[in-house]
Amino acid sequence: ASTGEVRRVTLIPGDGIGPEISQSVQQIFEAAGAPIAWDPVDVTPVKGRDGVFRIPSRCIELMHQNKVGLKGPLETPIGKGHRSLNLAVRKEFNLYANVRPCRSLEGHKTLYDNVDVVTIRENTEGEYSGIEHEIVNGVVQSIKLITETASRNVASFAFEYARQNGRKCVTAVHKANIMRMSDGLFLSICREQAALYPDIKFKEAYLDTVCLNMVQDPSQYDVLVMPNLYGDILSDLCAGLVGGLGVTPSGNIGKDAAVFESVHGTAPDIAGQDKANPTALLLSAVMMLRYMNLTDHARRIEKAVFDAIADGRCKTGDLGGSGTCSTFTQDVCNRVKDL
Amino acid sequence: ASTGEVRRVTLIPGDGIGPEISQSVQQIFEAAGAPIAWDPVDVTPVKGRDGVFRIPSRCIELMHQNKVGLKGPLETPIGKGHRSLNLAVRKEFNLYANVRPCRSLEGHKTLYDNVDVVTIRENTEGEYSGIEHEIVNGVVQSIKLITETASRNVASFAFEYARQNGRKCVTAVHKANIMRMSDGLFLSICREQAALYPDIKFKEAYLDTVCLNMVQDPSQYDVLVMPNLYGDILSDLCAGLVGGLGVTPSGNIGKDAAVFESVHGTAPDIAGQDKANPTALLLSAVMMLRYMNLTDHARRIEKAVFDAIADGRCKTGDLGGSGTCSTFTQDVCNRVKDL
Ligand SMILES: CC(C)[C@H](C(=O)O)[C@@H](O)C(=O)O
Ligand SMILES: CC(C)[C@H](C(=O)O)[C@@H](O)C(=O)O
Repeated sequence: ASTGEVRRVTLIPGDGIGPEISQSVQQIFEAAGAPIAWDPVDVTPVKGRDGVFRIPSRCIELMHQNKVGLKGPLETPIGKGHRSLNLAVRKEFNLYANVRPCRSLEGHKTLYDNVDVVTIRENTEGEYSGIEHEIVNGVVQSIKLITETASRNVASFAFEYARQNGRKCVTAVHKANIMRMSDGLFLSICREQAALYPDIKFKEAYLDTVCLNMVQDPSQYDVLVMPNLYGDILSDLCAGLVGGLGVTPSGNIGKDAAVFESVHGTAPDIAGQDKANPTALLLSAVMMLRYMNLTDHARRIEKAVFDAIADGRCKTGDLGGSGTCSTFTQDVCNRVKDL
Repeated sequence: ASTGEVRRVTLIPGDGIGPEISQSVQQIFEAAGAPIAWDPVDVTPVKGRDGVFRIPSRCIELMHQNKVGLKGPLETPIGKGHRSLNLAVRKEFNLYANVRPCRSLEGHKTLYDNVDVVTIRENTEGEYSGIEHEIVNGVVQSIKLITETASRNVASFAFEYARQNGRKCVTAVHKANIMRMSDGLFLSICREQAALYPDIKFKEAYLDTVCLNMVQDPSQYDVLVMPNLYGDILSDLCAGLVGGLGVTPSGNIGKDAAVFESVHGTAPDIAGQDKANPTALLLSAVMMLRYMNLTDHARRIEKAVFDAIADGRCKTGDLGGSGTCSTFTQDVCNRVKDL
């Protein structure tokens, strides 16, 4: 991007605490002079003539125009026929790679020091295919779908990510001892991609073994790539090691579009009370800036967030501090100006 | 069992370190005066006339006779057509509940204190159905199968287990937000069973959330019940919290048969060198004694094992000690005689 050019980003503030933490991001971006203009949009599903609920066309148009989105947490409407809106966004734009870095934060102590792992999750298929049948009464099958295309998309993304981020090793996580054909296919595509990246070490490991090792010594892992459900599980486990979903970012990335989102809940119990921690959405927005090659703004905002947490005076309640969403935001704004 | 009556148990020593640790169990049972006679048997699969490999009929006969088995680790033969032998045993005898207690051990410090959880895993279906197809080139589906019958078997087992072991709460672990029909069925059966056990608290939780919470604060969980694959993952995670598969027992339990096994690997690198830790198989054998209502022998052997680890002088190398399989076994034998 040439200097001074303003880039438009679709903003889905989301439900519950979504609007507060989105506002925090907007304020900090402004303080940092990030050349971003926001197009806020609602994704509350609209019922079509056929009775099916769909993401509103305005949101889809905006995503196609801007190619980049930032998204707060969404509540999935209750009742039959509603599938998770969070998932709908991932599938609608074929955002095949879900990237979740988990790093220990100075100023937020957990049982683990120096965690630094990145889970990269296939984001469109696997157990999330949505295909299920009741074969006879009391007998249900769900289809886990693994395709060569989606596997190659995410595997090649993982190796490219490793190379571009100075990472040393990619581990493919699987249960090909049990699902020999589906996980077997995923694994064979990972091996094929590994051969194209001789500069990156490649390992294979069973999901259960990774979970066991991860809680004993996370330092043995670097980048991990895996089918959809395994990523859901392992990314939450890793988030737990460093402090939970309130402090870990997430990016959903496809061929030519990407949506960055905080993956915590909408926290309706504290919504509107200025208690929410904007860190996960902020760090997701930092990932977004890097994706857009605005690396200097990314670096400054990230450092301001880390410094504010390390300092601790304005940390929010979930991190054991006495700050609010606003005081924390103000603290980050003050810091980012000096960086 | 009337006093003095000797009960026969099928013993599958297994591969690698299997024979050494099985011998340790036999010696300690003898020292404890446990009224058990062993029927050792090999399960190396035999190729039938149809070219398919099967568990030898001698093993199957013995299991049907004795109803109770103790099993060391098995190596799955390499090559097409071989499915995991460990799984074959579980399915062959419809051992629908896999019980894995994970408790912190005095004398083996980890990052976590006072862990005390039990995972109860459906053991015959789910993602382990073995049904997979390549639909077209590069598109594979694996079937996750959930039945009302198997779900009820394991759910009712979990509540009965909780009641009989003085446990307060059962948590059903699921992804019914994604697999609405299959995990939905599993969950609805858990609710149905919960209603029959008003003395046991019932909770429901997403698998990803449980993984996150488990690494932050395992004390919030008690008994957990879940479909097959989730149990594979969560039981390894929990084992990691207390020291790994070398110190955690496992029992596969069905309507009228049960096989208790250590779920660690065969450790070919140290096999035959008197370095193996027999603890997992010993604690599995203790579960077996309780299953057989030999509670006093169970209690004494368990205490002797715990005391030997807490004392530490004869701990094996994997626990940071300088003991061997034999010296540890001897230590437990000496202790059990005095209990
Ligand atoms: C909200 C839920 C549908 C989602 C998932 O299962 O993927 C969440 O757990 C996540 O990890 O983003
Ligand atoms: C060996 C393997 C097939 C097995 C499983 O996946 O169930 C193991 O991980 C276990 O937990 O007993």
